Amino acid sequence: MVVSTTPGLAVPRRLLGIDPGSRVTGFGVIDIIGQQRVYVASGCIRTQPGAPLTDRIRTLLDGLSEVAAAYLPAEAAVEQVFVNVNPKATLMLGQARGAILSALVLAGLPISEYTALQVKQSVVGHGKADKTQVQHMVVRLLKLSGTPQADAADALAVALCHANHSHAAIAGFARDGLRIRGGRLA
Amino acid sequence: MVVSTTPGLAVPRRLLGIDPGSRVTGFGVIDIIGQQRVYVASGCIRTQPGAPLTDRIRTLLDGLSEVAAAYLPAEAAVEQVFVNVNPKATLMLGQARGAILSALVLAGLPISEYTALQVKQSVVGHGKADKTQVQHMVVRLLKLSGTPQADAADALAVALCHANHSHAAIAGFARDGLRIRGGRLA
Repeated sequence: MVVSTTPGLAVPRRLLGIDPGSRVTGFGVIDIIGQQRVYVASGCIRTQPGAPLTDRIRTLLDGLSEVAAAYLPAEAAVEQVFVNVNPKATLMLGQARGAILSALVLAGLPISEYTALQVKQSVVGHGKADKTQVQHMVVRLLKLSGTPQADAADALAVALCHANHSHAAIAGFARDGLRIRGGRLA
Repeated sequence: MVVSTTPGLAVPRRLLGIDPGSRVTGFGVIDIIGQQRVYVASGCIRTQPGAPLTDRIRTLLDGLSEVAAAYLPAEAAVEQVFVNVNPKATLMLGQARGAILSALVLAGLPISEYTALQVKQSVVGHGKADKTQVQHMVVRLLKLSGTPQADAADALAVALCHANHSHAAIAGFARDGLRIRGGRLA
């Protein structure tokens, strides 16, 4: 994406946020139009517990490629997972995350990664926010009429975090006439 | 794949074995022609240490889709990784494995999984074999003129393990006119 340097012209940018999980992966799509963040869509991709790993990988690949094809985001942001005390759970989450990143790479999306701490700080204002506070702020910032499911809300929070991070960078770079891609200099 | 039930007719089957790693992923391709196992190809896909995760995911996806397109295997077998004491390493290996499985799913290959113990038992005869013994047996079983690199040899061992496991099953099922896919009943 090329950021317009014409003062006052708002270029819409569509972002896909992902909250990865081995059982439930949340996704959230928002548009940035100038200073506004506009809700587009959100939901969850659920893999069948106890199903063979390759079936769960297929569910994630198919689900995310459908989301990318349906909403045509320009960029993706994925929450970094924190390593679990249970090594088996960590391996399973890693495998799910590898499939999620594969789907986004294959969809041709530039990918940014944020820690849970960064997401909470960006959306709620401090890193110790709980799930309810994240949901509350997502509803408020996107002016939603209802509360999205927790994983979908987390994914929308990841998209909002990416919007805030890349917006701050773009504001500075755009002044200098530089091009940005996925929140990074192109 | 449909297993021919015509007695005495050897149907060639091409297998792709994978030894997953976050830095080096070995691959090995063999043909089963009747009782014979014939070497076709082997090698490694290396990801750049220190490169961004999404670049490493892309390297694995591109590398494995090239291997699948070049050798057109009918089935894939992937070694199960054992969880490391280091949670960060386990997460990274999980992510690499998720990308590897994604590439194989997208190539339309039925996938079987084997533990390192199963691979060693099948190829060397006992589960406590070291890397050198695995390499030695791979060279002997496939009548190779040189010794493949360790990760490539491990991948060939995974393919040989799958050949042995599915061959035993097929021998029984084919008698009954049943169809097998990826070493499993279709």
